[in-house]
Amino acid sequence: MAFHLLERNRTGAIDLSNVLHNAMEHIHHCKRCRTFTEDELCEICRHPEREASGLLCIVESPQDVLAIEQTLSYKGQYFVLMGHLSPIDGVGPEEIGLTELEGRLSAGGINEVILATNPTVEGEATAHYIAQLCASHNVDASRIAHGVPVGGELEYIDGNTLTHAFSGRRKL
Amino acid sequence: MAFHLLERNRTGAIDLSNVLHNAMEHIHHCKRCRTFTEDELCEICRHPEREASGLLCIVESPQDVLAIEQTLSYKGQYFVLMGHLSPIDGVGPEEIGLTELEGRLSAGGINEVILATNPTVEGEATAHYIAQLCASHNVDASRIAHGVPVGGELEYIDGNTLTHAFSGRRKL
Repeated sequence: MAFHLLERNRTGAIDLSNVLHNAMEHIHHCKRCRTFTEDELCEICRHPEREASGLLCIVESPQDVLAIEQTLSYKGQYFVLMGHLSPIDGVGPEEIGLTELEGRLSAGGINEVILATNPTVEGEATAHYIAQLCASHNVDASRIAHGVPVGGELEYIDGNTLTHAFSGRRKL
Repeated sequence: MAFHLLERNRTGAIDLSNVLHNAMEHIHHCKRCRTFTEDELCEICRHPEREASGLLCIVESPQDVLAIEQTLSYKGQYFVLMGHLSPIDGVGPEEIGLTELEGRLSAGGINEVILATNPTVEGEATAHYIAQLCASHNVDASRIAHGVPVGGELEYIDGNTLTHAFSGRRKL
């Protein structure tokens, strides 16, 4: 990429460097949900209907917010941990913003916390920790469903996921 | 493979041909669940504890039985459709053994039918059809959970699966 820019597109590269510089200077974390934004509060946190929904979805990263927004099926607010609990790397509750989250939980207005951390070992541990936090603040917590991905074939799905799909089966 | 056998392992190839011939002659469908077996009833159908469980899991193929057995978490019986409903290819209820299935449902002894067809369009349609069949025989039917596979990352999961994971979330 560097050679291509040097040989063929020096003005493009200067534009790119300006854009990058601007982004680094103006994009910071939303004061409420900690995702990336240019404003004090991000667009989602400023939305009155989303606040009225009483739903708070906890995710690990701003990319997860994007993925969920693209489904067009969730109409609540977010809280972005910017990571997951990982004591071995020195990442405790403080580092993933759980003090701010506790503040929001005790401020009221949230009926349900949806734990949408990654379905990995660290993500599950983080979800478990936050669920206990919610319980101590008398806020309902739920975990997104584990199961077979749509369009897959049973035969190629790992045993752990299949076990979850069976234990989480729903009455029809 | 053919060249390798011809050049280096002619006795191995003769063994292989015998084994293949034997398999074609002796392996047929289980009379009860339609999976592959050498006996009249397969090992799973002969198991008294599995019969006592009252659970019947509907899958599309014998490979799915293997995948589910490997999880060691399911202790009921199976019914193998050997395909899925596909009117365009001339595969109707008769072809996937639903007449036999109806016989088992009306014979009693089944408390719950777990629909574990593939999470594809055809699999869903087949599950829906069988759920109606169960309802008409007053047998409970459930569908395996759709959701995020264990160990994955939210960001890379398709929107359809994410939507299912959200709508199927469970209270903690």
